[in-house]
Amino acid sequence: MSIPPTVTWSGDAATGSLDIIDQTLLPAELQVLQIRTLDKVIDAIQRLAVRGAPAIGVAGAYGCVIALREGHDSSGLDRLANARPTAVNLRWAVERVRAAAKGDPQGALDEARRIHQSDVDTCRRIGEHGAVLIKPGMGVLTHCNAGALATAGMGTALAPMYVAHDNGVRFQVFADETRPLLQGARLTAYELAAAGIDVTVIGDSMAATLMRDSRVQLVITGADRIARNGDVANKIGTYGVAALAKAHGVPFYVAAPRTTFDPAVADGSGIPIEERSDDEIRKLHKIQLVPSTAKVYNPAFDVTPADMVSGIITEDGILKPAEVANWLSRD
Amino acid sequence: MSIPPTVTWSGDAATGSLDIIDQTLLPAELQVLQIRTLDKVIDAIQRLAVRGAPAIGVAGAYGCVIALREGHDSSGLDRLANARPTAVNLRWAVERVRAAAKGDPQGALDEARRIHQSDVDTCRRIGEHGAVLIKPGMGVLTHCNAGALATAGMGTALAPMYVAHDNGVRFQVFADETRPLLQGARLTAYELAAAGIDVTVIGDSMAATLMRDSRVQLVITGADRIARNGDVANKIGTYGVAALAKAHGVPFYVAAPRTTFDPAVADGSGIPIEERSDDEIRKLHKIQLVPSTAKVYNPAFDVTPADMVSGIITEDGILKPAEVANWLSRD
Repeated sequence: MSIPPTVTWSGDAATGSLDIIDQTLLPAELQVLQIRTLDKVIDAIQRLAVRGAPAIGVAGAYGCVIALREGHDSSGLDRLANARPTAVNLRWAVERVRAAAKGDPQGALDEARRIHQSDVDTCRRIGEHGAVLIKPGMGVLTHCNAGALATAGMGTALAPMYVAHDNGVRFQVFADETRPLLQGARLTAYELAAAGIDVTVIGDSMAATLMRDSRVQLVITGADRIARNGDVANKIGTYGVAALAKAHGVPFYVAAPRTTFDPAVADGSGIPIEERSDDEIRKLHKIQLVPSTAKVYNPAFDVTPADMVSGIITEDGILKPAEVANWLSRD
Repeated sequence: MSIPPTVTWSGDAATGSLDIIDQTLLPAELQVLQIRTLDKVIDAIQRLAVRGAPAIGVAGAYGCVIALREGHDSSGLDRLANARPTAVNLRWAVERVRAAAKGDPQGALDEARRIHQSDVDTCRRIGEHGAVLIKPGMGVLTHCNAGALATAGMGTALAPMYVAHDNGVRFQVFADETRPLLQGARLTAYELAAAGIDVTVIGDSMAATLMRDSRVQLVITGADRIARNGDVANKIGTYGVAALAKAHGVPFYVAAPRTTFDPAVADGSGIPIEERSDDEIRKLHKIQLVPSTAKVYNPAFDVTPADMVSGIITEDGILKPAEVANWLSRD
């Protein structure tokens, strides 16, 4: 990667900073924020300057260092843990650092660095397990951004692409632009191109034609939550890609760490689907795209049934959906 | 319709004007241009103030009135006929008016009005034939804009919806926003809402989830060209919608007048697919969506194979794709 780390810490516990790429400015501008106050950590998380559950978790962990050295009490850490209520990694990371640090910024930094390193290692293992799927000359389709910009490492869905590319395999990536928030156009295209990987952005509706023209041989997406039976909740549009992949005989893989699996959920029907603001579809910046007289439907996620999933690439290897329950029960 | 005509003529041949809705300003602003010079007719066509092959044809026909009364010679009419080289209706309409008018503006206006009225009649007959498909409570999905804003009448794909609504049938329309140019979000939503029809805009990637949730019982799209075997070229994304409809058991209909059928083309492989400017995907107004380091693929159309088409709604009734060749040979 020729872009800076998505999230990292520079300096020591007493004077260092949480450094993050401000993703709201991509692709027009690459700017690294050096954050030294709790309020600015929370602001960066809330306005999506840092996004992607693993990346938010690492940012929250380092945020604890800042909170403790600023002298915040437990309510400060609570505010941080709740900066985005749906990101389970954030709360998990803050609680883990809180327990380990016992109020000491240096202890917090040590634990945050362990969380950070664990994310890096997990991403790399996903990449190594998944890279075998990518053959020379393939067209590989992905949806949304489950890459380096969503983690502290090399990503989940994009990790196999980075490893394959490093191994000298040459292939072509098609990135769905991923309406409404365009993470594919803005972020996936940005980070893959920065790494020298051949990437082409398409409108979401064009994936079907690429499959019909035999220009896509493999699909890899990330996941937001995976049920015990292997049903996968991910960014809206993933289900459509999976259904089209099935119709065209294209293998459909999901890449996700163990922390994305939810053993408490039996199948996809138990995963709540967040419906987000109309304005994500109605407007782009200040440009009105949909007249105020029409309604808008904007679900943020959809559920791909396990029987459309060829395999799930984890840090422990590639699982068949039917193997998920047994794998989870080993913990 | 509570919006003005998409394209019409007001006044007499000597002093009247070509009146068109400037569709580049929708949905933010409804402005009717009153055009009285040939240069402004050509400009309106070229910058897509008027779009949709039937609407462009009617605008071109009225444009001949202006060209003749301004004293333009044959080269003026040639410039008009070629204002958009791919719109076959434009050249056809200009040649028809040129032949009928013999240099007389009043003769041109009479012939243009016949072309206009023919388009209105054709749209209404498509609407009446197709309306039987729409049952109370249905969810009807459409892609792009093949409505009143694309014709001089009530449209093609949207005509059955207008007729059903006028007949008192209540149903819900889902309009794909239709990237990259957002004709669904900007135009279909606008005209259906103006007519009091319940319309909801979705991102293109959301149609699959609506079908899976049994919220769509019927798909109707327009067509740009239909081959002798019933293969349908239409706005990019139509093929994906058709493939998803097939996978979910949802009927997929196309609405188009006789002039959209091309007897010279045996099947979809003979229809050239225009690839348009990267910037349609790369930018929205001046906002950069895709980094300059990444490539873009932007085909304007795709081809839906005849075996995915439940029927084609024409002014002569609803045809099975296998009936197209015989129907065309009757001319």
